[in-house]
Amino acid sequence: MIRKTDIQDRMIRAVEAVKRTNPMAGSITNSVTINFVANAQLAVGGAAAMVYLPDEGEFLAKAGGAAYINVGTLLPIYEESLPRVAKVLHEAGKPWVLDPVAIGIGSLRTKLLRQFKEYKPGVIRGNASEIIALAGLWELDGGTGGSNVRGVDSTDSVAEAKAAAVALAKWTGGAVAVSGRTDLITDGSVAAFSHGGSHFMEKITGAGCSLGGVAAVYATAASPFIAALTASAVYNLAGSRAERKADGPGSFQVQFLDELYRATPADIAGNPFEIEEV
Amino acid sequence: MIRKTDIQDRMIRAVEAVKRTNPMAGSITNSVTINFVANAQLAVGGAAAMVYLPDEGEFLAKAGGAAYINVGTLLPIYEESLPRVAKVLHEAGKPWVLDPVAIGIGSLRTKLLRQFKEYKPGVIRGNASEIIALAGLWELDGGTGGSNVRGVDSTDSVAEAKAAAVALAKWTGGAVAVSGRTDLITDGSVAAFSHGGSHFMEKITGAGCSLGGVAAVYATAASPFIAALTASAVYNLAGSRAERKADGPGSFQVQFLDELYRATPADIAGNPFEIEEV
Amino acid sequence: MIRKTDIQDRMIRAVEAVKRTNPMAGSITNSVTINFVANAQLAVGGAAAMVYLPDEGEFLAKAGGAAYINVGTLLPIYEESLPRVAKVLHEAGKPWVLDPVAIGIGSLRTKLLRQFKEYKPGVIRGNASEIIALAGLWELDGGTGGSNVRGVDSTDSVAEAKAAAVALAKWTGGAVAVSGRTDLITDGSVAAFSHGGSHFMEKITGAGCSLGGVAAVYATAASPFIAALTASAVYNLAGSRAERKADGPGSFQVQFLDELYRATPADIAGNPFEIEEV
Repeated sequence: MIRKTDIQDRMIRAVEAVKRTNPMAGSITNSVTINFVANAQLAVGGAAAMVYLPDEGEFLAKAGGAAYINVGTLLPIYEESLPRVAKVLHEAGKPWVLDPVAIGIGSLRTKLLRQFKEYKPGVIRGNASEIIALAGLWELDGGTGGSNVRGVDSTDSVAEAKAAAVALAKWTGGAVAVSGRTDLITDGSVAAFSHGGSHFMEKITGAGCSLGGVAAVYATAASPFIAALTASAVYNLAGSRAERKADGPGSFQVQFLDELYRATPADIAGNPFEIEEV
Repeated sequence: MIRKTDIQDRMIRAVEAVKRTNPMAGSITNSVTINFVANAQLAVGGAAAMVYLPDEGEFLAKAGGAAYINVGTLLPIYEESLPRVAKVLHEAGKPWVLDPVAIGIGSLRTKLLRQFKEYKPGVIRGNASEIIALAGLWELDGGTGGSNVRGVDSTDSVAEAKAAAVALAKWTGGAVAVSGRTDLITDGSVAAFSHGGSHFMEKITGAGCSLGGVAAVYATAASPFIAALTASAVYNLAGSRAERKADGPGSFQVQFLDELYRATPADIAGNPFEIEEV
Repeated sequence: MIRKTDIQDRMIRAVEAVKRTNPMAGSITNSVTINFVANAQLAVGGAAAMVYLPDEGEFLAKAGGAAYINVGTLLPIYEESLPRVAKVLHEAGKPWVLDPVAIGIGSLRTKLLRQFKEYKPGVIRGNASEIIALAGLWELDGGTGGSNVRGVDSTDSVAEAKAAAVALAKWTGGAVAVSGRTDLITDGSVAAFSHGGSHFMEKITGAGCSLGGVAAVYATAASPFIAALTASAVYNLAGSRAERKADGPGSFQVQFLDELYRATPADIAGNPFEIEEV
């Protein structure tokens, strides 16, 4: 089994590379949290670019080292944009992060998420209910036909989503990150449990979305598993630190972006996590 | 006439219920302030979900206890989405909050706002000019054909909008909230005047929109009148408190979200207001 | 040649007029930074209104003293909206600010930016790479066919964009503002170099977009050159001041909006700049 110190070394190298090279990870993402996603990507050292149109998405897919697709607020044009961009990313062998927000709501969302199965996102990020529902939609182990998604919130626990996460990771050959009190990140053979964060992360919008965008930034410089784990680690670290300085969700957001920016490679790799074989 | 203490008891129960149950109020709202609306809804204890597409709007309308529709930045798809969602809400007897932002600008906005007359929003929230213009568009008392709306700002006073607000509330059987130096909230038979707030609320974007979103959250747990009054009360309270800690509109926004989060049920019900018969 | 003190007098009058009259400058702008653009416009004393649809854009063009068009996140409807609005602005003799974000990405963006040549924006604002690419697209001096635009970031220096900026200003008869370590603002005969700002302005999204929106607000009350220079001056001033109080990009954004709001006319005109003949 892979040693924890090896993982930490790779996390440090990913963070350092991002801070040094400011890699661009383009996004097609929802309008609620689009600003927060971009600012989080910039705060960790990456660059951001958001588009809606098919050919623009293809351009970003080809120009960037990775990309982020979030199905939060679908527009009609996404029916064309999202499969085209996902296809380009898959064929180019570029890692991309899928955020299956609100899976189960609406026919276009279901159609798109079903199409994504063949384009194998490098990282799938969601809460427990979303991960279970996606595994169900893709007819993999651990999934359920009926989703317990209520809007964008989760009604399942991270532990309940483990089988689904492992099955999804095995299918894509990438990684899956399940957000919760303790985050689960798995590549299908190893599972990491990342600790920290803040109760305020459920009292602001975009903690999950921007984690996906930051994972895409790290995926330009590391494997999907290391990228997802590094993103979870810096989020848990910055969340814990920000909470100590915050008086509410407004000041938490401000402090959180500051802490994302201030976190050093060693800080991030040193944020508590454990690993186990799946 | 209803007693003020009875109203305050109902406000306290609404705030407590929202903090305890985190009810979801879905929105179709403008892209300028969509993030602020969601964060305000979360800060008071609710849950948020925003969509654009018709079937997704219908899903949220059926899944939530109330909804929020803001016509600020119309997209072409809204021609289909908004009437369908409003119809579902009306037929299901679900309260929904209408924010007739920038009424008078553009043909689609006028068409949609005219259609909404029959779907009777539980709460109509706007500034004085918007309320007068909507009453005019719906050919009710107190309205005028020509709107004094300049973009999104009001050139009329709250007092001048009282007749229009009462007429709209009588038509819908719900409540109308007119934002201004002193907010007017009426159900057509009682008028409440809520005090507080801050001059900074005109120096940030979204104070009005997010008040509408928060009113939708409270409408899951109270009558339209109590929901609108409770939303106005927490906004006036949080605005006053935030202003004392703010050095400008940037820090005001941060403090305002913190104070929305920190306000207790008793604080909110205790924010100054008077009632009178209409 | 125009004297620096004359320029400063005109800057002071522009700032005072905006603070006194709260002029509206409507925008069609990208969804990533739309909230920040609106809040920046409000912070300096203006009013904001954002739309997508063609007739609504025409309404704002006719109702406002100036407008802001940013091609950051194009939607399909923009193919119709943007040329129609630009034409109305041009024919009405209203100054408008063009932000050619991400020029070179996608066919619609190229088509729209090419169309804008005949509608002569009063102010063109961009980073060095964007300005060089736009001059190239319009087949003016100083431009290049191949753009060095990487997403939304610049890989060229402000000095390298001087010839392109002058050529663009001579073509439009307006002004061009090139954002960089030192900002260059030119009307084709005079060049001003505005100093200040902060390294954090590259670590947040929207510093450039909102500068364009603020330039549109000042363009309601001053010539394009004075409007662009005044906007650059208040941005450099607020950026420098905000950096001294910030611990990271989150707190920088908050402080920056506060400082935009607090900057006095004399402060803004007194922010360091030099002028030279072109």
